[in-house]
Amino acid sequence: MSEAARARHGGREARRRERSSHDHSHLHRPYITRNIPTYDILGEESLQAIERAADRILAEVGIDFRDDPEALALWKNAGAKIDDLRVRFEQGMLREILKSAPPIFTQHARNPANSVQVGGKGVVFAPAYGSPFVMDMDRGRRFGTLQDFQNFIKLAQSSPWFHHSGGTICEPTDVPVNKRHLDMVYSHIRYSDRAFMGSVTAEERSEDSIEMCRILFGADFVDRNCVILGNVNVNSPLVWDGTMTKSLRAYARANQAAVIVPFILGGAMGPVTNAGAIAQAVAETMVGCALTQLERKGAPVIFGNFLSSTQLKTGSPTFGTPEPAIGSMVIGQIARRLNLPLRCSGNFSTSKLPDAQAMTEGTMSMLAAVHCGANFILHSAGFLDGLLSMSYEKFILDADLCGALHTYLDGVKIDENQLAEGAFAEVGPGNHFFGSAHTLANYETAYWDSETADNSPFEQWEAAGSLDAATRANKLWKERLREYEAPPLDEATDEALKDFIARRKDGMADAWY
Amino acid sequence: MSEAARARHGGREARRRERSSHDHSHLHRPYITRNIPTYDILGEESLQAIERAADRILAEVGIDFRDDPEALALWKNAGAKIDDLRVRFEQGMLREILKSAPPIFTQHARNPANSVQVGGKGVVFAPAYGSPFVMDMDRGRRFGTLQDFQNFIKLAQSSPWFHHSGGTICEPTDVPVNKRHLDMVYSHIRYSDRAFMGSVTAEERSEDSIEMCRILFGADFVDRNCVILGNVNVNSPLVWDGTMTKSLRAYARANQAAVIVPFILGGAMGPVTNAGAIAQAVAETMVGCALTQLERKGAPVIFGNFLSSTQLKTGSPTFGTPEPAIGSMVIGQIARRLNLPLRCSGNFSTSKLPDAQAMTEGTMSMLAAVHCGANFILHSAGFLDGLLSMSYEKFILDADLCGALHTYLDGVKIDENQLAEGAFAEVGPGNHFFGSAHTLANYETAYWDSETADNSPFEQWEAAGSLDAATRANKLWKERLREYEAPPLDEATDEALKDFIARRKDGMADAWY
Repeated sequence: MSEAARARHGGREARRRERSSHDHSHLHRPYITRNIPTYDILGEESLQAIERAADRILAEVGIDFRDDPEALALWKNAGAKIDDLRVRFEQGMLREILKSAPPIFTQHARNPANSVQVGGKGVVFAPAYGSPFVMDMDRGRRFGTLQDFQNFIKLAQSSPWFHHSGGTICEPTDVPVNKRHLDMVYSHIRYSDRAFMGSVTAEERSEDSIEMCRILFGADFVDRNCVILGNVNVNSPLVWDGTMTKSLRAYARANQAAVIVPFILGGAMGPVTNAGAIAQAVAETMVGCALTQLERKGAPVIFGNFLSSTQLKTGSPTFGTPEPAIGSMVIGQIARRLNLPLRCSGNFSTSKLPDAQAMTEGTMSMLAAVHCGANFILHSAGFLDGLLSMSYEKFILDADLCGALHTYLDGVKIDENQLAEGAFAEVGPGNHFFGSAHTLANYETAYWDSETADNSPFEQWEAAGSLDAATRANKLWKERLREYEAPPLDEATDEALKDFIARRKDGMADAWY
Repeated sequence: MSEAARARHGGREARRRERSSHDHSHLHRPYITRNIPTYDILGEESLQAIERAADRILAEVGIDFRDDPEALALWKNAGAKIDDLRVRFEQGMLREILKSAPPIFTQHARNPANSVQVGGKGVVFAPAYGSPFVMDMDRGRRFGTLQDFQNFIKLAQSSPWFHHSGGTICEPTDVPVNKRHLDMVYSHIRYSDRAFMGSVTAEERSEDSIEMCRILFGADFVDRNCVILGNVNVNSPLVWDGTMTKSLRAYARANQAAVIVPFILGGAMGPVTNAGAIAQAVAETMVGCALTQLERKGAPVIFGNFLSSTQLKTGSPTFGTPEPAIGSMVIGQIARRLNLPLRCSGNFSTSKLPDAQAMTEGTMSMLAAVHCGANFILHSAGFLDGLLSMSYEKFILDADLCGALHTYLDGVKIDENQLAEGAFAEVGPGNHFFGSAHTLANYETAYWDSETADNSPFEQWEAAGSLDAATRANKLWKERLREYEAPPLDEATDEALKDFIARRKDGMADAWY
């Protein structure tokens, strides 16, 4: 080791020792296995009413498939009724097709210890996805760059509370649109060793994303295992665009998992009444999921959903409101009846700051995600401004909430030690438990310990500068980026990936749309 | 009407017309009837394990009753084993006694339209209780005064989202301790027409509180109906102090409802393990509830609970963390098995500001309250600083969350209109629902509309001053206080109450402890 390297190493060691006692890295789990039941809010009759409504939309109104003749051909083959671009589905047809989709699958990470189970009792937290802007308390709002994109990967990777590196965490707007996917997929591979998502904005970009996984994992492995997700959106109401269905089919063809997500703002892309918006979402998602099975029977697929409401006086979208929270619970019940893994809800807000509004909306929305039984929770952290901005400070606050939800999803353990029966006899009425044998035996593992909350007495908080949670988060993300260390990556693989990217980039002119 | 009165009236009318479109007063309901199930997280076997642990604490360790020989005599009569101050209870004894307590009762308000159902599917929101300090963004933290106390009553009364005026919303520290209860009860009666709580800090103060209700409602009515609640705390672990049991008995004797609440900070007043703290809480609460039945069989009583955790590194209490949220759900299941109305959880936080921390903790805690099936949710609004401070801004933010929870508790309605089946045929694939007949018929009642959230586009929010939610709340509480109008109160009753207070105050020297 050179002097400089040793100095750097020594410095790192010193910083490591200096790290606050809030270092939770040893608490990282590849994914959560939920120990509390899902919260089932509707009874059988009501669920059937919604399913019947979805079936009628599919049979009577139908879904338009634009710019993808192959998708129409697949539907025709499967027995659907085709009328120009409109496809109608007889009752029961889609449910039959969906039986071949796996209820649970593993998405492999390049570090096998970080592979995630998608489905069943598994719960996976991934960062928010898709903001054109980023914001922080120092520089305000601005367009996202590749540097920001990589920063968020690093922040997620260095937090124990995420299980997945996500996808388009923010748009790297300084990279041409037709080349972004190469830099994004590479950044996920380079700066994280967790599972991640690829591009969906064009069929060839989906294929590039998957091809890079073949370099990383080997082509055979990729053909037999899920290693990448592609998040495809319905063009609600009731339209599937060719860009999306071609990407969806590219993922399925490669045995990779598409996440099928209608994005319905009630009153705009769906009815203003919750039950109707839910029925529409179920119809649209079933169609997308079934199409993956027509493309490749048995391909993994995730039943996704993104319900939201509208402030009807202004037409503004709203997020983190009670209707979609309740809607998520219903969608969860229906996904389980279809025996499909679920992506639902996340940490949503329209606030323009990491303030009280942001966390009221975000917490309601995130608790809906864990209660509804979502297996893959995209948008777990960073979401502000109605998904237009990715916030550095909110990312830290949300990561902390994700940590709390690990404890929440663990529920209550019941055994002799947890019931503490001996402790009551030991301590007796009127005495404190602080020094009791039971407390001493359990205090190290007891209680969720937040890294952003200030629990100190008022005077102590005041003496420390009267900081609010966002200001504490501002300090924390800078610390995390300073302390970040990239996980090791095989050099030959790294070279092969760089070589692939260089060749693909050389082969096309920059495009900004 | 005099010129001046007419001018004032005209001014009021003008102000009324100016009120924002966010005026939700027409949405006030006396209480919520929940339309979503409780969230039952434990199965039969686990619940029985906790109940058995509680039974063993009661039979083997027992509970100390201090400074209340009459309570000991009541227990002796009932067949408990007495050893000096220690009382032990054979398995099944308390459950038998508790059978006489009503599962549902009505607490009458002086405005009969505001009477609340406590128990069953009823959910009642009341402000926070007990802070010595108040805070706002202009003046910071300071000791509470009677003026502050009355301000919070006015803020609650003018919000549609509370159903109850609460009790000691903040301590009016400018009034002698031994006379506060008179001014507090009078203020609830004068500035609110909703149900409220009385004093418990001494037996005679409890009796004064009830006596004032006799003036308001008539003595016969009070003997036959619940018109006031008294919130009594266990001195955990496993001690009932005489001040509390005497107050508890005073309420029960008058056929008024005591709320029985152990306040357990795990690691301090109870074990650090959640299951043990829950078992302890169940034991302590069952004892208090049963004592009300020994005092007066059939008296209404509320099974209360206040679980919290500790930051074990510092010993600081924590609030709004995941363990008590999960604990609340278990307590709810056990209260329902006892067939008793439940008070549980609330909007808790240790934050010293109405910031992101405050609402993350508050929302997690408040959702636990509605999920666990709590019927009476004290601390629904204003709680900051670990219950040391009542915040004007957080009160407004929490009130807004209470509003959202009205919609949340309404769940999903399933009928032809809500399923919107005609709308899909009308709108068809690819078109917007904005102007559809279904949207026009439903938009006025669709969607929760927050009064503190800013859903506008970033540029519009920026042009309006880039305000955070707390700053918007600061503006709102001042508006509410300016616009507040006291509900009418019969003049003779008012005089009689004032006369009673004057006589009681004259009869004793000021005491400040």
